Amino acid sequence: MAEKQQNTIYIGKKPLMNYALIAIRFFNYDNVDEIKIRARGSNICKAVDMVEYLRNMYYKDLILKDLNIFEEEVTDDKGNVKKVSSIEITINKGKNAPMI
Amino acid sequence: MAEKQQNTIYIGKKPLMNYALIAIRFFNYDNVDEIKIRARGSNICKAVDMVEYLRNMYYKDLILKDLNIFEEEVTDDKGNVKKVSSIEITINKGKNAPMI
Repeated sequence: MAEKQQNTIYIGKKPLMNYALIAIRFFNYDNVDEIKIRARGSNICKAVDMVEYLRNMYYKDLILKDLNIFEEEVTDDKGNVKKVSSIEITINKGKNAPMI
Repeated sequence: MAEKQQNTIYIGKKPLMNYALIAIRFFNYDNVDEIKIRARGSNICKAVDMVEYLRNMYYKDLILKDLNIFEEEVTDDKGNVKKVSSIEITINKGKNAPMI
């Protein structure tokens, strides 16, 4: 994660709701149409859960623009380089998105 | 999982290697070009790991044909219906796939 991209949510260890709130903030207050969700390793399932949660609860017309899986190299505290599988999901809030 | 599809690997609780071996078996012994990998809930990250593992270790030209995330309804022992997020990955072994 050397270069942070705009409108991208990096899913980590916090509860799913935290990230869902960030997504809603992007969509409604910053008026962004498209956001990217990125997660690594065991957080990948949380990223998928989050998309389904947003679709079910708030944005019925949510569009899956792009989905990609790849590998990233991560350096840990001891300087060892590890490969971690990652996911990147691009979603669009769609038409008639509600103001929450 | 009412209707089982051909050439589909359902990722469950077993170690990753078990499923990787099934994939290799599909590719080499059954001479299948394309397989589908399906996983639900917390096994989603294992499915992504498996694709990266196959790409790194055996099939360098592995092609990601299709990627999809969606929700499935699952009925548990007590008859409660739950929604679980799922992933479906379609991979092609690509050209010059090695015989293992």
